[in-house]
Amino acid sequence: MFAPVYLDYNATTPLDPAVREAMLPWFRDRFGNASSRHEYGRAARKAIDEARGQVAAAVNAHPTEVIFTSGGSEANNLFLKGAAATMRPGLVVVSAIEHPCVREPARQLLKSGWRLEEIRVDGAGRINPQAFEGLLAEKPRLVSVMLANNETGVIQNVAALAAGVRARGGWMHCDAVQALGKMKVDFRALGVHGLTLSSHKIYGPIGAGALIVDKRVELAPLVAGGGQERNLRSGTENVMAIVGFGKACELAAAQVEERALHLAGLRQRLEAGLRQMDARIFSVDALRLPNTSFFAIPGVDGDTLVGKLDRAGFAVASGSACSSANPEPSHTLLAMGVESSLARAAVRMSLGSASTQQDVDGFLTALGENLASLRTLTAMTV
Amino acid sequence: MFAPVYLDYNATTPLDPAVREAMLPWFRDRFGNASSRHEYGRAARKAIDEARGQVAAAVNAHPTEVIFTSGGSEANNLFLKGAAATMRPGLVVVSAIEHPCVREPARQLLKSGWRLEEIRVDGAGRINPQAFEGLLAEKPRLVSVMLANNETGVIQNVAALAAGVRARGGWMHCDAVQALGKMKVDFRALGVHGLTLSSHKIYGPIGAGALIVDKRVELAPLVAGGGQERNLRSGTENVMAIVGFGKACELAAAQVEERALHLAGLRQRLEAGLRQMDARIFSVDALRLPNTSFFAIPGVDGDTLVGKLDRAGFAVASGSACSSANPEPSHTLLAMGVESSLARAAVRMSLGSASTQQDVDGFLTALGENLASLRTLTAMTV
Ligand SMILES: Cc1ncc(COP(=O)(O)O)c(C=O)c1O
Ligand SMILES: Cc1ncc(COP(=O)(O)O)c(C=O)c1O
Repeated sequence: MFAPVYLDYNATTPLDPAVREAMLPWFRDRFGNASSRHEYGRAARKAIDEARGQVAAAVNAHPTEVIFTSGGSEANNLFLKGAAATMRPGLVVVSAIEHPCVREPARQLLKSGWRLEEIRVDGAGRINPQAFEGLLAEKPRLVSVMLANNETGVIQNVAALAAGVRARGGWMHCDAVQALGKMKVDFRALGVHGLTLSSHKIYGPIGAGALIVDKRVELAPLVAGGGQERNLRSGTENVMAIVGFGKACELAAAQVEERALHLAGLRQRLEAGLRQMDARIFSVDALRLPNTSFFAIPGVDGDTLVGKLDRAGFAVASGSACSSANPEPSHTLLAMGVESSLARAAVRMSLGSASTQQDVDGFLTALGENLASLRTLTAMTV
Repeated sequence: MFAPVYLDYNATTPLDPAVREAMLPWFRDRFGNASSRHEYGRAARKAIDEARGQVAAAVNAHPTEVIFTSGGSEANNLFLKGAAATMRPGLVVVSAIEHPCVREPARQLLKSGWRLEEIRVDGAGRINPQAFEGLLAEKPRLVSVMLANNETGVIQNVAALAAGVRARGGWMHCDAVQALGKMKVDFRALGVHGLTLSSHKIYGPIGAGALIVDKRVELAPLVAGGGQERNLRSGTENVMAIVGFGKACELAAAQVEERALHLAGLRQRLEAGLRQMDARIFSVDALRLPNTSFFAIPGVDGDTLVGKLDRAGFAVASGSACSSANPEPSHTLLAMGVESSLARAAVRMSLGSASTQQDVDGFLTALGENLASLRTLTAMTV
């Protein structure tokens, strides 16, 4: 089978061999509904509890604060809509660069009488502290700011923002889906009320995620029913995925420093090469995740380039919203004030555990070759 | 490893070997985010589309009517709350014997101004057509009735009920989680607007389910975000689980008749034995799934008996709500007018593909032995 070089780890990751190993018994012959009161059920419950401990330990939370969900999108929706459902409508504030699975549930609240404000970011994609202060004065009941952006990799000072929100009596949520495994994530130190994690971004399986939630937060369940997960997430627990997620969290916490070093080294090499091709690298001046490089070659369409690179054997992402039929340029870049034409040129490369120098060098070579032919093309059609 | 005889297939099922085989590549080395526009993403998308076709074919629906979810609980919540969110508040009607993941979301609607009525059932657990007609006169906007009950196995005439709902302009939903694979399930013939399926009850993996939904139904997403699943269920698609679910649906549809014959034969043997022990078998007079036997030995506590049987190597379920710390007797039995004391004696045995005559005979022997000792115990403590 033809296996292109995978350079899109922010989209999803392959399973870590140790994660696969932990899941294997549940893939082979073990099974059980954790609510059943017999041997099969107890074994499933025990496996889930162990994973709960691993997830909690990885982010310095208490196991009882871990609510397992089907993934990051569900956890974000659970916090925002679940918390809003227990309050009188008021102001909800999210940053302008949140993932759609924060922005869309926030927008859904408009229907039930909430007001929505977006926090602006500067040209490097950092939250503007003045703009944030201004919004705090309006006493938001709910605030959500991501720890690290999926496109630029920019890291926000969430602990400082959370302190401001807490001081005004609001509830602070943080989407740490992209941060986990690439930098230290500490629920207590962040001081947030809710923290979202996702398994498949950290070499765990798709199908598991968690909302870490402060016990003082009252939430209405999104999926109501049998009462699993302290009545906050009903449905038969996905034992195999949760076991894999637990193991992936354990590894992420244990290896975060060595992973970051490996990734940062490769990215430096990549970006040196990109600069020689006159690429414009977004958010270079901001604190970024070590694995992510979001760049544009002015005048070259990002989607077209991603297609060319795919055929050349390199899997990277463009900056446009991939789920829509008519791709829009990245809302993150637009929020940063990047012109629409440059935003349409954006390409995201996100490195991961299996990435090597050869991958980076091969990618740069392929990029150079394709740019030459694309520029000829563009010149001809203009 | 000590492996008790599993007789709790209505709680969850082991993977069918052919399902495991289909999932294997995605467990081993294949991975990808189906939204990605490169080789990895396209392969994931293709696998999901194939599974969508398998699910649709199994229930006589169109592939575009299949919305993948994380399971049955989520699909039920999506239909009820998702549809309600697009309507003016009105009357929602659910049967008194629905699974909590239908009853609870229906109750949550009370908060947004809906009225909730329950449809009564008779002593055998069948919906009372008169009671149903009476409720229809009140023009419910949303109605949900399960195809087969998880405890008694009783099958409702959903097609007839749906015709009545449609005639009054309401939307009819049906939870077919327990029916699939044990009887024919035909979306078109049922004439419902929404149909819920779950993978892990049909020898597929936990972590996948579907809402089959008529295109005319407008739904607000429960999990909003990236826009996956026609914008009705955002979040990175669980490729491995969906692939397994697709295969499990294909097998369920192809084998439903032989499975039913096998199960019905074993149950007949089981219930003949139970009658000799003066067990009271619930819903014997109703049309039931072929694999389920819900019974009580008067005077013997169900939970205690299940514990004894577990230690004797037989995994069955009691009739109480397993998710709560303080178990309540089965709401299904209470709705059938069964006295609380008899309801507390209830035990559910649900047979499946690997069940054998030896399992049934061994179970009956173990039951007999434990009854003798339990009766002595009860006599001593009275
Ligand atoms: C920042 C961020 N939040 C949330 C999500 C959604 O996570 P999941 O795919 O587990 O639903 C993603 C991934 O797409 C993400 O990058
Ligand atoms: C009738 C019925 N509906 C829904 C469900 C929930 O399905 P899931 O476990 O996939 O969330 C179950 C299983 O517990 C069930 O028996």
